[in-house]
Amino acid sequence: MTTETLAGPIPEVACCAPLVRSPMSAQEAEGLSKVLKAIAEPNRLRVLSLVAARDGAACVCDLTEPLGLSQPTVSHHLKTLVDAGLLAREKRGVWAYFSLVPGALDDVARVLSTAGVSPAAGSPTCG
Amino acid sequence: MTTETLAGPIPEVACCAPLVRSPMSAQEAEGLSKVLKAIAEPNRLRVLSLVAARDGAACVCDLTEPLGLSQPTVSHHLKTLVDAGLLAREKRGVWAYFSLVPGALDDVARVLSTAGVSPAAGSPTCG
Repeated sequence: MTTETLAGPIPEVACCAPLVRSPMSAQEAEGLSKVLKAIAEPNRLRVLSLVAARDGAACVCDLTEPLGLSQPTVSHHLKTLVDAGLLAREKRGVWAYFSLVPGALDDVARVLSTAGVSPAAGSPTCG
Repeated sequence: MTTETLAGPIPEVACCAPLVRSPMSAQEAEGLSKVLKAIAEPNRLRVLSLVAARDGAACVCDLTEPLGLSQPTVSHHLKTLVDAGLLAREKRGVWAYFSLVPGALDDVARVLSTAGVSPAAGSPTCG
């Protein structure tokens, strides 16, 4: 994964090395936490999942029934995910269509992943 | 990644398929959001990063200075991460040592990852 695939405005995530690889700075942690807070809400997780399931693009009308939420509430969640750089919005006629920003969720996954790092739980360093 | 490597109490995460693979149920989303909320705080992200950096185990005394936080505040963040199944706690003499639960962060990363899935942003399904 390179930052070239990133179309969304989340340079804070794209910039971060995996958090288990080296100590995260306060600034990096602040940026990553903003994106994680956008994701860390059950209905927004389901919005991301439903958008992906509908061939990668959906409008509010696709989401209200499966989520059991009103259109204004779904629109609010969509806006939060767009602001966090996770969803892209495209207006077509009456409806706006939302799609996953390619690479955005993968950037978050990459920062959280411990792949290639084996924490040595049995090596305490505090004397 | 199999659930066999999971020592922590977060079966909600371990149980979930990648969220872009199939629509996430309300119950799955609720479980995953709990773990993400524990992670989605700047100081807790830095705690995870610092614990990993100290050969995978650290006590409160290792964390107060780099974080610039009081011991009670750091202890609170550590407890939140233990409760979420992300850190393991082991008492040794005066101090408790904290280490990453093997596989826990990777389980979260695996659910968020879109690896192997290519959302078709140009295929709206709402007529």
